[in-house]
Amino acid sequence: MDKQELIDCHERIKPFIHNTPVLISRLIDEMAGAHLFFKCENFQRMGAFKMRGAANAIMQLTDEQKRNGVVTHSSGNFAQALSLSAQSLGVKAYIVMPSSAPQVKKEAVKGYGGILIECESTLAAREHESERIVNKHGATFIHPSNNDHVILGQGTACKELLELHPDIDYVIAPVGGGGLVAGSALSVLYFGNHCKTIGGEPFEVDDAYRSLQSGKIETNTTTNTIADGLKTQLGDRNFPIIQKHVEEIIRVTEEEIVLSMRLIWERLKIVCEPSSAVALATVFKRREKLSNKKVGIIISGGNVDLGRLPF
Amino acid sequence: MDKQELIDCHERIKPFIHNTPVLISRLIDEMAGAHLFFKCENFQRMGAFKMRGAANAIMQLTDEQKRNGVVTHSSGNFAQALSLSAQSLGVKAYIVMPSSAPQVKKEAVKGYGGILIECESTLAAREHESERIVNKHGATFIHPSNNDHVILGQGTACKELLELHPDIDYVIAPVGGGGLVAGSALSVLYFGNHCKTIGGEPFEVDDAYRSLQSGKIETNTTTNTIADGLKTQLGDRNFPIIQKHVEEIIRVTEEEIVLSMRLIWERLKIVCEPSSAVALATVFKRREKLSNKKVGIIISGGNVDLGRLPF
Repeated sequence: MDKQELIDCHERIKPFIHNTPVLISRLIDEMAGAHLFFKCENFQRMGAFKMRGAANAIMQLTDEQKRNGVVTHSSGNFAQALSLSAQSLGVKAYIVMPSSAPQVKKEAVKGYGGILIECESTLAAREHESERIVNKHGATFIHPSNNDHVILGQGTACKELLELHPDIDYVIAPVGGGGLVAGSALSVLYFGNHCKTIGGEPFEVDDAYRSLQSGKIETNTTTNTIADGLKTQLGDRNFPIIQKHVEEIIRVTEEEIVLSMRLIWERLKIVCEPSSAVALATVFKRREKLSNKKVGIIISGGNVDLGRLPF
Repeated sequence: MDKQELIDCHERIKPFIHNTPVLISRLIDEMAGAHLFFKCENFQRMGAFKMRGAANAIMQLTDEQKRNGVVTHSSGNFAQALSLSAQSLGVKAYIVMPSSAPQVKKEAVKGYGGILIECESTLAAREHESERIVNKHGATFIHPSNNDHVILGQGTACKELLELHPDIDYVIAPVGGGGLVAGSALSVLYFGNHCKTIGGEPFEVDDAYRSLQSGKIETNTTTNTIADGLKTQLGDRNFPIIQKHVEEIIRVTEEEIVLSMRLIWERLKIVCEPSSAVALATVFKRREKLSNKKVGIIISGGNVDLGRLPF
């Protein structure tokens, strides 16, 4: 995935996404001892950066593939992102989701025009059901994070950030399935100026941290984190990019995530997901390293259940 | 207060305030059956529109007055706004606050450089203490809402909104002490294009509604509302403006306020005070009147205790 592909991707998806605002806070800067630039993908369409990769992946299909629709299995933001992107592009989206998923997530997918397919709550059942739809409808399976077009799309948030602030020293993104941090690392590589990429990850699901240590893709045995978007694991498309272009993955505790989340809500006056707060938490964790640096923070999304806040 | 005074005021305070963003939401528009433009003063410095009026009032003082400082009694946003404005302008701000006020509000005032003076929790005690400071230090008393310079300053938020969207049909502002709605009405009068001003008020503190009915300034006997910024009453400087230039004051229930607040948080992904949600609640209350209209909503502020949310 070279520089031109990233540029082409960005031009391609521009009509379907927002160039989201970048916010700053003098008080958080003082607390962190650094200059922070928050790229607010919580203001993205459907409330998360996932819209970027989903739109790019669908736009790369042939006309015949578009006629047969797309399928993914996700109970999170990618399900909504693929549904809304597909709707915007006149393509059918089949979304495989466990029947145990919250009703509000099912409704959101249907609200964006997605075709909901319910299944058992195991990964095997989800994969089996997705395959069935591929076979039955000829639909194209689109993975939420381990897909080159998705990775490129997710990287465009960081590209926009660097276009606005070309002298940023570090970009920090939360690490779940690896699509966002890999895409960001590519944007940093092509559009940064002595800039480096850092990943943020909860201790409770530190598969990416361990993967960088061991040199192979590790999995999580437990997923006991408030950062519900970060429970997934890396894949063979994004892991090599992360190995090569992400300087470090910094782990944070659940308490640190909640404190940073509260700080973002109280000071920036925005609603963000716990996953987004992981990136800010790493700044406080590595205070010395980032001292006086210009640091871009990717606020990944804002879809959060207000009835279940941690404060 | 003529058009030129409002223009001069805006130019004067520009270096000390943000021109806050205007957000829209397709989904809220669909729900409301109208085109809504949210002027986000929760992103204003110190988190509320009050910064505008406070800055203007201090800048209008003579050099000698500035040397002697300013004083106000408030336990809300105006206390912080006057402190921060005064700090920015190198002026002392004495803030009279009941000793029973939440510690977090006292800390906020001190954090912005205000000099905190604690007193008993009655209006009489607050007024007495303010007067003592006027006499002792020669400080100038600045009322949070019943002061011409404050009213003009508060009106600049609506002026910015109309500069961006000159074809807005209605501007809706929450009504507490009356400074914001009076200032907004002046901006609508001078810069609107067939535009009208509406006030939003909780049934629980409907003094402004009753004042318009009776033709004299009414008070509240109870203040049992979640919209803690709207418990105050009108004054002789802003009431005549409201009488002449506000088309209607629409009252909403506590439940309607909370529903609208949740909608703003969930869909716009921003943190706003309950008082701000009052303005949106009126849109749903007067669905027919506002059908298909372009409606500006002043989101007054975002200083809210996350530990005490109504959802």
